[in-house]
Amino acid sequence: MEEKKETIRPLTQEAIAQAKDLLHSAGFGALAVLDPESGAPLVSRVGVATDFDGAPLIFVSALAAHTGALQADGRCSLLVGEPSKGDALSYPRLSIICLAREIARGSDEHGRMLELYLAHLPKAKLYAQLPDFRFFRLEPQSASLNGGFGKAYLLSRANLMVESQPD
Amino acid sequence: MEEKKETIRPLTQEAIAQAKDLLHSAGFGALAVLDPESGAPLVSRVGVATDFDGAPLIFVSALAAHTGALQADGRCSLLVGEPSKGDALSYPRLSIICLAREIARGSDEHGRMLELYLAHLPKAKLYAQLPDFRFFRLEPQSASLNGGFGKAYLLSRANLMVESQPD
Repeated sequence: MEEKKETIRPLTQEAIAQAKDLLHSAGFGALAVLDPESGAPLVSRVGVATDFDGAPLIFVSALAAHTGALQADGRCSLLVGEPSKGDALSYPRLSIICLAREIARGSDEHGRMLELYLAHLPKAKLYAQLPDFRFFRLEPQSASLNGGFGKAYLLSRANLMVESQPD
Repeated sequence: MEEKKETIRPLTQEAIAQAKDLLHSAGFGALAVLDPESGAPLVSRVGVATDFDGAPLIFVSALAAHTGALQADGRCSLLVGEPSKGDALSYPRLSIICLAREIARGSDEHGRMLELYLAHLPKAKLYAQLPDFRFFRLEPQSASLNGGFGKAYLLSRANLMVESQPD
């Protein structure tokens, strides 16, 4: 998620805190994946929670295009942070580059994630029991925080995870 | 943006109207592009307006990663439609598969698009004159409407453009 060097600000504790807050408070996001047939990018909405260590969790239907795409190639990118009134580009948002790992239904991990996910998004109970829904844990590789117009920061995986410090 | 056939509903006039409304009323969206170095997907927020014929227009900084990515490979995907309170997945959204075409600054097309864009997003005046901003017209190839949980439709380019009818 490079931007030209001169536009990137030095990373601060405040920027790290803002990035984590955007991720931890997100209930949904935009997920970009690669279309397995064409290799073209596809973007769609997904529900989002975070795992105990801060990694994003998504809970998606096997019937949706993004699920098959992630099964074919786990490289993906997640955008979180929603604007309010006025210029949408003045509101902070976080783009995370991730590698997705599918979690087997019925595994201990699935159970643990479902508990976290439903605590964060109780309305997901409506489809939590549908057999086509499964979790992917999105392992952050790096991220780009745009804290509002012109305020760009690059973050490492360590910066995003719980308990991290600036590099 | 394929989903498995059994989940796709037959296209209706109402679905076409909903898709167009989501696009025409959007002031921003999530844009997925391909990272030119890695080929991985990247997603970021962009401001969005529509051209006279209904094609999405984005106005982006040359300093942003998505701009260089589109210059290297015009394949992209745009998500529009924002949730309100409650389950984000119960709100309609539209994922459009597009090919981006860059518009030269100073061209007649640029002038026309700037007029449309500022009429739609007046706050963009703040950066309209910055020399690193340029338009891309996103030519829709196809689209996927999710009209709320389980209500999926596939649309053609013709369905999305102004004056279109169902196939």
